[in-house]
Amino acid sequence: MKILAFDSSSFVASVAVVMDTVLMAEYTVNFKKTHSQTLLPMVDEIAKMIELDLETVDAIAVAAGPGSFTGLRIGSATAKGFGLALGKPLISVPTIDAMAYGLFGFTDLVVPIMDAKRNQVYTGIYQFLFENGQYRMEVLHPQWAVDIKELLIELNQKEKRVVFTGDGILVYQEQIAEKLKVPYSFAPPHLNRQRAGAVGALAEVYFIEGKLESAAEHKPNYLRLSQAERERKEKEEGGSI
Amino acid sequence: MKILAFDSSSFVASVAVVMDTVLMAEYTVNFKKTHSQTLLPMVDEIAKMIELDLETVDAIAVAAGPGSFTGLRIGSATAKGFGLALGKPLISVPTIDAMAYGLFGFTDLVVPIMDAKRNQVYTGIYQFLFENGQYRMEVLHPQWAVDIKELLIELNQKEKRVVFTGDGILVYQEQIAEKLKVPYSFAPPHLNRQRAGAVGALAEVYFIEGKLESAAEHKPNYLRLSQAERERKEKEEGGSI
Repeated sequence: MKILAFDSSSFVASVAVVMDTVLMAEYTVNFKKTHSQTLLPMVDEIAKMIELDLETVDAIAVAAGPGSFTGLRIGSATAKGFGLALGKPLISVPTIDAMAYGLFGFTDLVVPIMDAKRNQVYTGIYQFLFENGQYRMEVLHPQWAVDIKELLIELNQKEKRVVFTGDGILVYQEQIAEKLKVPYSFAPPHLNRQRAGAVGALAEVYFIEGKLESAAEHKPNYLRLSQAERERKEKEEGGSI
Repeated sequence: MKILAFDSSSFVASVAVVMDTVLMAEYTVNFKKTHSQTLLPMVDEIAKMIELDLETVDAIAVAAGPGSFTGLRIGSATAKGFGLALGKPLISVPTIDAMAYGLFGFTDLVVPIMDAKRNQVYTGIYQFLFENGQYRMEVLHPQWAVDIKELLIELNQKEKRVVFTGDGILVYQEQIAEKLKVPYSFAPPHLNRQRAGAVGALAEVYFIEGKLESAAEHKPNYLRLSQAERERKEKEEGGSI
């Protein structure tokens, strides 16, 4: 099985090829350039480096949200483009699930936090269980958008040690230090951002479970309204003065 | 702090830039091309992508062995070249330590195994401890070259669950299944090979601890004799017939 994977849900742009339990190539950039400039050249670059015949890919995996609306649109459009052109299925990987999968093997509660602005985070709560000779990721709370304070209340109630990952750490570390009563730590540099390698590795699991969709039916999952939609809704609900 | 990191100790070639707890860029290729063809173009590629001014790098980190003799020579020569040209210190990271660091947060014994041929592996035994609000990697058995059977006897004596990583898994999984009596698992695709991101992340820890060396004094650590040296030694010890 060979999977081409993307993650452009955040500031990070990342591309990977995973084949039968091995990461053949991975290219990740965390820089201000827009993903519309970087993502396709990065695919080109790794395809050339590992002499990848795109026709031999079995599926295209993409971090399908939540995240930056523009980033998600670029990632999904790129995945759809490859899926349609090559006639291959897509695998939609929830962004937060893939981030948690990057911390495979931790026994703490794994809590990715992406800064969603306005004191909100995109997050989820996960744990890894060792069963029948292998680890399995369990989703304790599926990804959602929530006020950081509410998340910390929920984590305090669970009374388990927590490890955080994601760009939300930089924004919310003071609130975490102030309000979180359970022991916690932050993931180290090589594990604290999105990686297409983790998207591709989780997509291998999904592929075996048959969680495929067509390029035509794929769409990103924004988890909440865009700023424009929100403002229109507030205006409509506010009525005329 | 900004660190440029390499790992070309095995089949994998990997380059990364780590800056103040964040992975700025990482590029990893696991393919048959020789590292002398890939490593420098990969540095060029990521430097261009993140607009990296090499003069601003604080240190050059390299997976300094064990591993493929040719791979280590290319990695060390590249690191020395950058170190000398830029007037920057080097950080020698033991290859097996960096592989273990890739599995940061596991509570199992972390055991990287690189196939060293002739039924031997390059390996080491590690564990992660949570102390004072953070994880710390402890080296239980520093990296060494050993017969796979001896390693498995030692792991049986420790009576703890084990997680393996590295290309040795493919070669020795049958012997492991047959002889290992403790529960064990194999790391998933995104965590089962060398990554320069892990080299760079561990190098940040070393940098703070002052474990630096000059480009002139750096040399790779092969851990054992090369085939040519071994054969000469055997011939000398065997005497004349």
